[in-house]
Amino acid sequence: MIVVDRKHAMEAILEAKLKQNKTFNQISEAVGRHPVWVTSAIMGQQSMSADEAGKLTAYLGLTEEVALSLQSRPMKGSLDTPVPVDPLIYRFHEITQVYGTTLKALIHEMFGDGIMSAIDFEMDVQKKADPKGDRVVVTMSGKFLPYRKW
Amino acid sequence: MIVVDRKHAMEAILEAKLKQNKTFNQISEAVGRHPVWVTSAIMGQQSMSADEAGKLTAYLGLTEEVALSLQSRPMKGSLDTPVPVDPLIYRFHEITQVYGTTLKALIHEMFGDGIMSAIDFEMDVQKKADPKGDRVVVTMSGKFLPYRKW
Amino acid sequence: MIVVDRKHAMEAILEAKLKQNKTFNQISEAVGRHPVWVTSAIMGQQSMSADEAGKLTAYLGLTEEVALSLQSRPMKGSLDTPVPVDPLIYRFHEITQVYGTTLKALIHEMFGDGIMSAIDFEMDVQKKADPKGDRVVVTMSGKFLPYRKW
Amino acid sequence: MIVVDRKHAMEAILEAKLKQNKTFNQISEAVGRHPVWVTSAIMGQQSMSADEAGKLTAYLGLTEEVALSLQSRPMKGSLDTPVPVDPLIYRFHEITQVYGTTLKALIHEMFGDGIMSAIDFEMDVQKKADPKGDRVVVTMSGKFLPYRKW
Amino acid sequence: MIVVDRKHAMEAILEAKLKQNKTFNQISEAVGRHPVWVTSAIMGQQSMSADEAGKLTAYLGLTEEVALSLQSRPMKGSLDTPVPVDPLIYRFHEITQVYGTTLKALIHEMFGDGIMSAIDFEMDVQKKADPKGDRVVVTMSGKFLPYRKW
Amino acid sequence: MIVVDRKHAMEAILEAKLKQNKTFNQISEAVGRHPVWVTSAIMGQQSMSADEAGKLTAYLGLTEEVALSLQSRPMKGSLDTPVPVDPLIYRFHEITQVYGTTLKALIHEMFGDGIMSAIDFEMDVQKKADPKGDRVVVTMSGKFLPYRKW
Amino acid sequence: MIVVDRKHAMEAILEAKLKQNKTFNQISEAVGRHPVWVTSAIMGQQSMSADEAGKLTAYLGLTEEVALSLQSRPMKGSLDTPVPVDPLIYRFHEITQVYGTTLKALIHEMFGDGIMSAIDFEMDVQKKADPKGDRVVVTMSGKFLPYRKW
Amino acid sequence: MIVVDRKHAMEAILEAKLKQNKTFNQISEAVGRHPVWVTSAIMGQQSMSADEAGKLTAYLGLTEEVALSLQSRPMKGSLDTPVPVDPLIYRFHEITQVYGTTLKALIHEMFGDGIMSAIDFEMDVQKKADPKGDRVVVTMSGKFLPYRKW
Amino acid sequence: MIVVDRKHAMEAILEAKLKQNKTFNQISEAVGRHPVWVTSAIMGQQSMSADEAGKLTAYLGLTEEVALSLQSRPMKGSLDTPVPVDPLIYRFHEITQVYGTTLKALIHEMFGDGIMSAIDFEMDVQKKADPKGDRVVVTMSGKFLPYRKW
Amino acid sequence: MIVVDRKHAMEAILEAKLKQNKTFNQISEAVGRHPVWVTSAIMGQQSMSADEAGKLTAYLGLTEEVALSLQSRPMKGSLDTPVPVDPLIYRFHEITQVYGTTLKALIHEMFGDGIMSAIDFEMDVQKKADPKGDRVVVTMSGKFLPYRKW
Repeated sequence: MIVVDRKHAMEAILEAKLKQNKTFNQISEAVGRHPVWVTSAIMGQQSMSADEAGKLTAYLGLTEEVALSLQSRPMKGSLDTPVPVDPLIYRFHEITQVYGTTLKALIHEMFGDGIMSAIDFEMDVQKKADPKGDRVVVTMSGKFLPYRKW
Repeated sequence: MIVVDRKHAMEAILEAKLKQNKTFNQISEAVGRHPVWVTSAIMGQQSMSADEAGKLTAYLGLTEEVALSLQSRPMKGSLDTPVPVDPLIYRFHEITQVYGTTLKALIHEMFGDGIMSAIDFEMDVQKKADPKGDRVVVTMSGKFLPYRKW
Repeated sequence: MIVVDRKHAMEAILEAKLKQNKTFNQISEAVGRHPVWVTSAIMGQQSMSADEAGKLTAYLGLTEEVALSLQSRPMKGSLDTPVPVDPLIYRFHEITQVYGTTLKALIHEMFGDGIMSAIDFEMDVQKKADPKGDRVVVTMSGKFLPYRKW
Repeated sequence: MIVVDRKHAMEAILEAKLKQNKTFNQISEAVGRHPVWVTSAIMGQQSMSADEAGKLTAYLGLTEEVALSLQSRPMKGSLDTPVPVDPLIYRFHEITQVYGTTLKALIHEMFGDGIMSAIDFEMDVQKKADPKGDRVVVTMSGKFLPYRKW
Repeated sequence: MIVVDRKHAMEAILEAKLKQNKTFNQISEAVGRHPVWVTSAIMGQQSMSADEAGKLTAYLGLTEEVALSLQSRPMKGSLDTPVPVDPLIYRFHEITQVYGTTLKALIHEMFGDGIMSAIDFEMDVQKKADPKGDRVVVTMSGKFLPYRKW
Repeated sequence: MIVVDRKHAMEAILEAKLKQNKTFNQISEAVGRHPVWVTSAIMGQQSMSADEAGKLTAYLGLTEEVALSLQSRPMKGSLDTPVPVDPLIYRFHEITQVYGTTLKALIHEMFGDGIMSAIDFEMDVQKKADPKGDRVVVTMSGKFLPYRKW
Repeated sequence: MIVVDRKHAMEAILEAKLKQNKTFNQISEAVGRHPVWVTSAIMGQQSMSADEAGKLTAYLGLTEEVALSLQSRPMKGSLDTPVPVDPLIYRFHEITQVYGTTLKALIHEMFGDGIMSAIDFEMDVQKKADPKGDRVVVTMSGKFLPYRKW
Repeated sequence: MIVVDRKHAMEAILEAKLKQNKTFNQISEAVGRHPVWVTSAIMGQQSMSADEAGKLTAYLGLTEEVALSLQSRPMKGSLDTPVPVDPLIYRFHEITQVYGTTLKALIHEMFGDGIMSAIDFEMDVQKKADPKGDRVVVTMSGKFLPYRKW
Repeated sequence: MIVVDRKHAMEAILEAKLKQNKTFNQISEAVGRHPVWVTSAIMGQQSMSADEAGKLTAYLGLTEEVALSLQSRPMKGSLDTPVPVDPLIYRFHEITQVYGTTLKALIHEMFGDGIMSAIDFEMDVQKKADPKGDRVVVTMSGKFLPYRKW
Repeated sequence: MIVVDRKHAMEAILEAKLKQNKTFNQISEAVGRHPVWVTSAIMGQQSMSADEAGKLTAYLGLTEEVALSLQSRPMKGSLDTPVPVDPLIYRFHEITQVYGTTLKALIHEMFGDGIMSAIDFEMDVQKKADPKGDRVVVTMSGKFLPYRKW
């Protein structure tokens, strides 16, 4: 439902999280799903089941309305502009600009003509300790979808 | 050197690769570096050392000029537009748009205020067999850079 | 292969088609695939198999090079601008602008949260006689892809 | 009337639909028109007759004002940006970008110089069961309009 | 045919027109159609019949190739940018920006919900003598197309 | 005066017009000017004289404030974007894109180097009955302004 | 004539001017018009008479073709982008951005609703000596055009 | 101070000016500065001294807060878009587009490499009576700034 | 936390600073950090520690909420548009446009392939007295990050 | 002179520099100016004197034509797009986006209302050794220009 206001739900959750000093990890455990997925649902990009939404609002002591909102199918897209300005997010844009043709060439060579799905898709973020400076490790796993011929 | 034409070098290499029926993997082994890095160098996004460039041109039987070009520091950016149209590349743009605030929230929670470097950065692409459809697995590893205070 | 020039192949085919007075339908029959798919392959948006490309170039008396080009994996996207100017193509842009939220609301209601694939996708164009004016009937069929939860 | 606020009418209807747990299909039956047309009218893209608007507001128990609003001629266009970000809607944009010249070439070959109307136009969305994954089938039917010569 | 180069045909015609000192009016008489239509065909926006194209190329002494090109169905759109810079053309853009909602309000009031077709459309340009300064009179006539309900 | 809020005046007038079931034609007769001019003044694109504004507000029973606002010199431009999305308004944009160079070529040939004024300009919209479908006839009349040489 | 290549004419004139070490002033005297007008004609923004063009090409020893080109009616607009990058030209863009509403408020107060013509327009550039640094003085004079009422 | 709301100050001044039927000229006399400068300060583009702001608010009977706001250093730029739509303001944009390279060529020839400052800059607007139609005369005077070499 | 409203915190601080007549320098001394860093934190671009935020709010007599907000990790980016309009800020944009390739060529020559970090980065602004006019001296110091090879 | 092709001069110089294995530093010494200024002149952003251009071309053994070109006044702006993609250059764009309002606030506080000139401007780039990683130090020095009041 487009009309359900995911932005208000997001703000209510982040407010509660801040006041109760919870992490995305703790909320995710309460929901029973991966932190990336749960965070993206809070950010208004995923639809929760009634059960998942109920666990989240119970954990943070939020209203039924928030739970209902989390079950809606949101207008996706978390950014205001095609080219993000925030430096952390921009670096992912830069990776697409710099390595886009590389990813295309290698995926086509390994799999044939098709794409990596961003729908049948999951992502993980990890911290890898490194004496020269810890590293952010982002793993994306998307189903390969071959172009259909007809 | 901006003036050295990386596009001509790229075309010469891809032409030779096609005619000699080589894969990016084979070329990468000849160069002695990871296929993602070597492919992105071919695509005009990295500077090779004289040794690396020499191995590549020797393997494919290309000119000194191509080797020289591969050592230049190119104007980076492999795409024509901020929002890519090619569906494979667009999916990575979509991931940034949909999951951008999620990545920001989680990386800040795990590391503090800072970014994942796209320079002290490496990437891997793998094929993961799956009975429901093989999966593309992309792993990005970038050094966490905390914001400097002064 | 990005370097293979699909634009030259497209022009060679359209030139031959014009001089030999062939239709897209006839070429498609020679290739053994649907006219929409074959036309989009000619327009540089699909990769043909060696067999399909061979049939096409044999039918029109074209070179090996064209056949090779048709087997490459092209940079997809047939238009120069995000908003097309040509009136025929613009009408499809207008349909997305006017009916976009309608399609989203109905597909979500019928299928749940997910999308219609544009990769595992086929399209048909038909002429439907109508006394008040013939109608163009475009049928799109894409696999429903539910959002993965993890 | 431009001044009549279709956005408020849309929100009132979607709110009522949610609370009363109605589907677009049920509302469409009450109105006596096709679900795609009724949904697009709710989304602010069509003008209802007094009779149609009255049936809709009666079915959902809404005010006269909503009925009046539904009869206005709205500023059409349901999206905020020329290139949509929401993945479901973006796929239709992608289809125009990838298959635009194909549609142009084939419609011109089948009908002559002209366009498919997006005004004398109707659309249907169906679910087609498929063991490999259900398919979304979208059928567009627009009157062919030949270019006038004078 | 997209591949046929209307730009070359346009340049050949304008070159010949200049050298032979002909007006668009004279060419239009030779073709047997209205000057606006013939000029727009020369500018690459219309498809001529074989007969019309033959008359034009005969009148100006041009090749068969030009005649063939004039029969193709061109990629329409005569400007490089959405907002034109040339002052004469910009004034028409300004009229749409300033009077757009006025035209919408009045056409809806006079005809109901629908549009003025730009396809089943003709246009005339006249010079109207006026002691305070001659006036350009542009008359547009487009079929009203009511929105289809279904 | 930029500060005077023409948007509120527009909404007040359209609201009153709707409730009292008046047409733009009737309001124009009350004002004593052409319906296109009066409608564009209501839409916030023209400055009325005190007399004209008084007649309009008297006819619809509106406040002094509205009358005052109608006399202000508004920031002109009735659309939100350079390329309009609403189909009725877009068709006029399309006409500029498709016929822009045609209008330029013919006006220059008929008048010399200069433009059609959009300020010393008037426009008329008529309904022309036609058995094949009524036609919208838009007539624009603008003073020709020759480029000054100095 | 759009087809006549004003860019080649411009380059030929500037090349000759450079080699013969002439100033725009000297060329303007030869032509018998103001340096701003003559320079803008050279830059492809004005149509010369046969006499003016002849004087210019005679003065610089250029071909008939250049003279013919200078008499054509060019596609006007001397910049590549809506927002210029060159610092000298950008400052004029900045003046419009910073003082645009000021100019509007004052011109409306002094003249009523209307505009300063950019067609019945002339401009002068002078150097004014000043001990604190010489000043560029640009004077624009455009006919006031009142909005027509009808 | 960025936080001080110049827009509210502007609205308060314009409101008072309207109700008390004052001209920009009269206000400027009260302030003791040129009408262009005072108007641009009112439009939020200049910082007044305490004395200037005090004179203005005394003359119009406005609050201390407005006076304080007029002394702040505003975020400059009076327009919403890079390309203005309002016809009066657009004509200045058009002048930059059409005459930009002319101004560059002449200023470089007269002064050497550098720019006309838009900061050490003043502007005047005058009405020049002319039997063929009064003229708007805008004079800009900016210090020439030569490019520094180092 | 994205939800914490840095804009309100910024406004509260700037309001207090204005009323208490404090400089950024004085606030920075109270915080114990460099004025550029403290100002950018106030402008919503940095995360303060609890200690730093406490010192700032104590110095200006502001609430706990402001202190909490200053510790959040903001969505960075202080401007509304990619190309700034404000003349002071635009000059920095101009420097990037004019000197961008120069900086790239020299940094590559001095350091090899890599970038100057904008994260491990500090900046200073000084006033340098000069009889010909005081100078603004901006010093940027960013860690050189060499491109990683793998 | 706009027509003089600075791009060809740039390419000739960079080609010679590469083949003769010279640094920008060495060329700058030959010219007798700072490396940043000389590099930016080579990149087509500055006008050399006849003496400077002669020294450069003598040092690298280049033609008179290159020397002449270096004395022309180029169309400035070294990048193709308002937002650069190359990561090294983008970081400077990011600094403007993130620190733009900070620079504005501090410069206004230190100097009053005005700007840092980008014309009476010089820049230096240095390498500062640092055990944690060498640092790029960029120093910009621009004359403060106060806004003129009149």
